[in-house]
Amino acid sequence: MTSAFSFELMATDPCGARMGRVHTAHGMVETPIFMPVGTQATVKAMTPGELKGVGAQIVLANTYHLFLRPGADQVARLGGLHRFMNWDRPILTDSGGYQVFSLGALCRIREEGAMFQSHIDGSKHFLSPEAAIGVQETLGSDIMMQLDECPPADAPRERVAAAMALSLRWAARCKQARNPEKSDRALFGIMQGGIDEGLRRESAAGLVDLGFDGYAMGGLSVGESRATMLEVLSYAPQQLPVNQPRYLMGVGKPEDIVDAVACGVDMFDCVLPTRNARNGQLFTRKGPFNIKRSENRDDPGPIDPYCGCETCQQYSRAYLRHLYTTREILGLRLMTLHNLHFYLDLTRAMKNAIRQNRYSGFQRAFHQALAGETPEY
Amino acid sequence: MTSAFSFELMATDPCGARMGRVHTAHGMVETPIFMPVGTQATVKAMTPGELKGVGAQIVLANTYHLFLRPGADQVARLGGLHRFMNWDRPILTDSGGYQVFSLGALCRIREEGAMFQSHIDGSKHFLSPEAAIGVQETLGSDIMMQLDECPPADAPRERVAAAMALSLRWAARCKQARNPEKSDRALFGIMQGGIDEGLRRESAAGLVDLGFDGYAMGGLSVGESRATMLEVLSYAPQQLPVNQPRYLMGVGKPEDIVDAVACGVDMFDCVLPTRNARNGQLFTRKGPFNIKRSENRDDPGPIDPYCGCETCQQYSRAYLRHLYTTREILGLRLMTLHNLHFYLDLTRAMKNAIRQNRYSGFQRAFHQALAGETPEY
Repeated sequence: MTSAFSFELMATDPCGARMGRVHTAHGMVETPIFMPVGTQATVKAMTPGELKGVGAQIVLANTYHLFLRPGADQVARLGGLHRFMNWDRPILTDSGGYQVFSLGALCRIREEGAMFQSHIDGSKHFLSPEAAIGVQETLGSDIMMQLDECPPADAPRERVAAAMALSLRWAARCKQARNPEKSDRALFGIMQGGIDEGLRRESAAGLVDLGFDGYAMGGLSVGESRATMLEVLSYAPQQLPVNQPRYLMGVGKPEDIVDAVACGVDMFDCVLPTRNARNGQLFTRKGPFNIKRSENRDDPGPIDPYCGCETCQQYSRAYLRHLYTTREILGLRLMTLHNLHFYLDLTRAMKNAIRQNRYSGFQRAFHQALAGETPEY
Repeated sequence: MTSAFSFELMATDPCGARMGRVHTAHGMVETPIFMPVGTQATVKAMTPGELKGVGAQIVLANTYHLFLRPGADQVARLGGLHRFMNWDRPILTDSGGYQVFSLGALCRIREEGAMFQSHIDGSKHFLSPEAAIGVQETLGSDIMMQLDECPPADAPRERVAAAMALSLRWAARCKQARNPEKSDRALFGIMQGGIDEGLRRESAAGLVDLGFDGYAMGGLSVGESRATMLEVLSYAPQQLPVNQPRYLMGVGKPEDIVDAVACGVDMFDCVLPTRNARNGQLFTRKGPFNIKRSENRDDPGPIDPYCGCETCQQYSRAYLRHLYTTREILGLRLMTLHNLHFYLDLTRAMKNAIRQNRYSGFQRAFHQALAGETPEY
């Protein structure tokens, strides 16, 4: 479908976990991969150099935010999103829909698209499938997402079914709206259908019928329980083509990612590592760790003695707690760096396990460490 | 007076500007030098590695803030200030007095010392000359400052005279209070006397009589005009010993530093480059530059085309303005990095000019560039 974009499936573990390579005009991404979220054309508190240092291969940027500030045309005049933010590796943009529906005031969804008001200045805008593609093409991302409607976890089945059907019609319009001269970018369709296996199947079939460069699963991690999400993941990824990348949007905790990979998912994004770092929550193999706790005041040791990140190599829990308590920017930086290193180190460990056909053992050891049964995996 | 600490005067320009070396237990500092301010054991938004990258040779930390949080004993238990903040080069600490008098609530100054309440939790504390030395020795800085009283610029002469006399008595007590086992640290006396040449002379003579490792000039940059400050600098530094370092506290703008060096000052500290960066004000050879201005929105060029810092090498004015507008941490980082690079690059340029006996020409060219008459110096 596109020239620069392709996916190579390199290995499949007996359990179904996959290792692959996504090729883009800005280089290759090895999957499974976690994409740090750079909402406003910056992964909060990090430089591009630091992102590369922790092994980030691709970042996500939010179309809604960039559409409002500084504006897609503005980004294009400045050479496109990669040059603007000084990031020469792949970028995935979302469609803007999720933020329009969650952040935009007075949002009204119709067949044609969504009217909304900016959460910044109240200005009125219209987001259609065609506009979503136009804005993403103007920004210049490597992977674009279709506009979809993502209902909350507690929506009734009829609402979920209607949103799935609308998302399919929007998928067709997004594909149609593409500029054929910009065929080096990829477009992903988004499966909806909530927690209903039949709706998920219908959504997948409709998207595959249209044909996309990759397929995302939306409508998960929107408020349902972990058990419910895992149930959907037990069937949804397999409804998608084997030879194309599968992206689970907005997921999630480390354990969610580890389990989703076992279900055949390749790509992830989530604000957890960056946002939680700024709230003092740090990820370790034994589970999250809160820097605010008073016992850290006297602790000369690192966040995680097993971690190889710069923060753990050079700074004590006591100093990080001091920086957090005094609201120093360096604290936000060092904790963000640790959390992103943790997430990307986890993807490296998963890749190795898949390559060696031992993903189920890895997954078991991961959960044992998390439960405090062993520090190693 | 101390073992590890010494000052070598390497060169004196015909105009009186000096080049020297301050030796400490944590290495050497070439003067003239600017000391970035690391109030709470961190130079705001910067890592120690970045500080070294821009050429910082020594940082200042604020005793008042560290005394309150996390506490000097706490820092000592964690291996001292250098290890705590992961900075292995020299550190200068102030006495805490200036912040006690300006930030502390209900501060009462008596002969014995100052009673004050924490600006954080209202807790009551007493700061005496002996306590100021004790806290600084506990923190483990390389250069300690005596406790002094620094009256505002508009204080009447009697008040300035009394503060100068009290500061001299406190200087004697600070020297007396030193732990002889910690003789590798330096103690600087602080000259007071406001804008009165006689009082300044009396202060200098009293301090030299006591004998210190170096001498600071306090009570400047406290609200007086630039012309008044330069007038004081025309005589005050020469009242101090030639073979010891001279430190002008809390100064200042780049032009103030350039002119003070011509008067024989060696060391400076100021929050301007770091604080102003966080407010979007960037220093250039042509004067300060405000990133907020709307014309930067479309500007693909760097802050300063003559600047070699990472920010100017990699990021546009348009992107920095976007980061500032959206309150992104990366903006604060990149702008702080630029400003500190500018200040430390300026000290390198001054050193070269002194080494080559052309400081007056350098000073003239600096002011011409600032006035927009030429971009070069």
